[in-house]
Amino acid sequence: MSWESNVRKVVPYVAGEQPSGKVIKLNTNENPYAPAPGVEEVLKNTDISILRKYPDMNSGLIVNALAEKYRVKPSQVFVGVGSDDVLAMAFLTFFNSGKKILFPDITYSFYDVWADLFGIPYEQIPLDDDFVIHPEDYDKENGGVIFPNPNAPTGVAMDLTGVKQILDLNRDVVCIVDEAYVDFGTKSALELLPEYDNLLVVQTFSKSRSMAGMRIGYAIGNEKLISYLQDVKFSFNSYTMNTVTLAAGAEAVRDDEYFKKSCEKIIKTREKLKKDLKELGFAFSDSKANFIFATHPDVYAEKIYNELKKRNIYVRYFKKPRIDNYLRITVGTDEECDELVRNLREITA
Amino acid sequence: MSWESNVRKVVPYVAGEQPSGKVIKLNTNENPYAPAPGVEEVLKNTDISILRKYPDMNSGLIVNALAEKYRVKPSQVFVGVGSDDVLAMAFLTFFNSGKKILFPDITYSFYDVWADLFGIPYEQIPLDDDFVIHPEDYDKENGGVIFPNPNAPTGVAMDLTGVKQILDLNRDVVCIVDEAYVDFGTKSALELLPEYDNLLVVQTFSKSRSMAGMRIGYAIGNEKLISYLQDVKFSFNSYTMNTVTLAAGAEAVRDDEYFKKSCEKIIKTREKLKKDLKELGFAFSDSKANFIFATHPDVYAEKIYNELKKRNIYVRYFKKPRIDNYLRITVGTDEECDELVRNLREITA
Repeated sequence: MSWESNVRKVVPYVAGEQPSGKVIKLNTNENPYAPAPGVEEVLKNTDISILRKYPDMNSGLIVNALAEKYRVKPSQVFVGVGSDDVLAMAFLTFFNSGKKILFPDITYSFYDVWADLFGIPYEQIPLDDDFVIHPEDYDKENGGVIFPNPNAPTGVAMDLTGVKQILDLNRDVVCIVDEAYVDFGTKSALELLPEYDNLLVVQTFSKSRSMAGMRIGYAIGNEKLISYLQDVKFSFNSYTMNTVTLAAGAEAVRDDEYFKKSCEKIIKTREKLKKDLKELGFAFSDSKANFIFATHPDVYAEKIYNELKKRNIYVRYFKKPRIDNYLRITVGTDEECDELVRNLREITA
Repeated sequence: MSWESNVRKVVPYVAGEQPSGKVIKLNTNENPYAPAPGVEEVLKNTDISILRKYPDMNSGLIVNALAEKYRVKPSQVFVGVGSDDVLAMAFLTFFNSGKKILFPDITYSFYDVWADLFGIPYEQIPLDDDFVIHPEDYDKENGGVIFPNPNAPTGVAMDLTGVKQILDLNRDVVCIVDEAYVDFGTKSALELLPEYDNLLVVQTFSKSRSMAGMRIGYAIGNEKLISYLQDVKFSFNSYTMNTVTLAAGAEAVRDDEYFKKSCEKIIKTREKLKKDLKELGFAFSDSKANFIFATHPDVYAEKIYNELKKRNIYVRYFKKPRIDNYLRITVGTDEECDELVRNLREITA
């Protein structure tokens, strides 16, 4: 026997490619615009001698900034190393019943990876043929529910009536609404928090706040929920958010005007890109995210993906059942999207 | 039934107090000196527009800098959010046999917290009355072994003969040597790596590199071990190290001269502090860390701790069996230590 027989063996999540060099990168839903200008000031003015000390283990700067913006108590806010860290902690904390948790069959492909890592059983509930979630499908015994709104990689959003319906059917388990893309035009479930003590809303700085490189995500929920999450976090790593990140993140939250303008620009480009893609014959649901999930009637998605890659344009292709003829295209700048469309016109001609 | 019955309930690790304001802080083993000056340049010169993109998920900058310094392959290096993150991942990855893992009864108090979090059974092996680890005590069936060298909070170091003895007794499980304090005068187990494919050496930037506030830790081991650790990490959070941290950390590793000088200064102050404490009647083992674990024959440790706190001097006190009459005193600057000794003289008079 060797030490290898004791190892936890897992199939890890595979993130999108991160090519370097001069490419048009529309494959990992990054924001094409820089973070709020105040972030630069924070970095420039950091007194590095404070780095010798541990950071604030309660992430006070970001927690307070978020509490103020979303009008909740600081004790309702949990901060982590990107929403992936927050979601991993939430899986570990809340999905501990031994019963199957429920999530859509087509969704963020990290959910089943976390479930496998922590030994959580799960059932994937099929979307309909238009990639729509039907709340009544979540009416069965379970150990918890999670879904993104808008859903990824489809971009399809659910209105709050649908979200409430899922919550009403599942009062006795924790329901996580993963709102990574909510700022691009979907109504947040945050306003439902006073009604539902089992609701956890997760958001991120990686998309709408242009800070994927800083790794900041957060969850908002009732105080008891957040307190359990904190206990597990403090059983894992006391200090997850570094001193520089805390200051930079808080500054980004404070600049609400920049944040809103940046989201508006992306929404405008997305709507233009929808028009252009439609003209080229692409079909897609009405995305409310910073990406479009599109299929072409004549040219296979994998072929388009490879052709674009040859031309140094990266989009995301998932070789998975039901979606293997789709491309997930991140909304970039107007110029990037125009260049994409020009190349797609040639490829699909 | 409510969602609460499904929650994983844990007793979290309690980190040392983080008082603000003008205090002498000798309670969390922070380095009294600033990080390498190059770190400031990195922060000042960061182009924030790159933060919109995800960071390098392979932590290339730090991995390569460490591989070069410690003369190992980059594929032998794993980087995480402080050594706590690295250790948590290692527990999750390697201690998966269902058998008891072994660690000392007096040691880093996070080990039993991680074991409880992940449902790993464990047995605590008593140190002898001089707080010494006896390798032959680790000669029993187990699911893995972990110990710090030098040990914390005792500061007692083991020579490599002892480390080898534990490794030889445990070839079929992963053995983790937690070297958080190794740079203050203990020989690292890194040189044993070619002989032992089951050895994982964990170190941190938080102590000897003055970067507790940046959260950087790492593990070095054989490629297969590191590859399993990476798989679990990529099943948890693809991107843990942010872009700024990667650049700052790499810069700190490159400035080896600054690093060595900073360690030498702390060692010198530690030896002076030992002399002073001895004069006041304190007893302690010969610490090789950046702290001294001391007891006084006449005045209770808890009383000294409280008296010092009243005078705005923070040291660490653990109200735990066998060590409840000891104080763990971090080695600060010469001035801080002189001020501590002056106050201890009054308190123990």
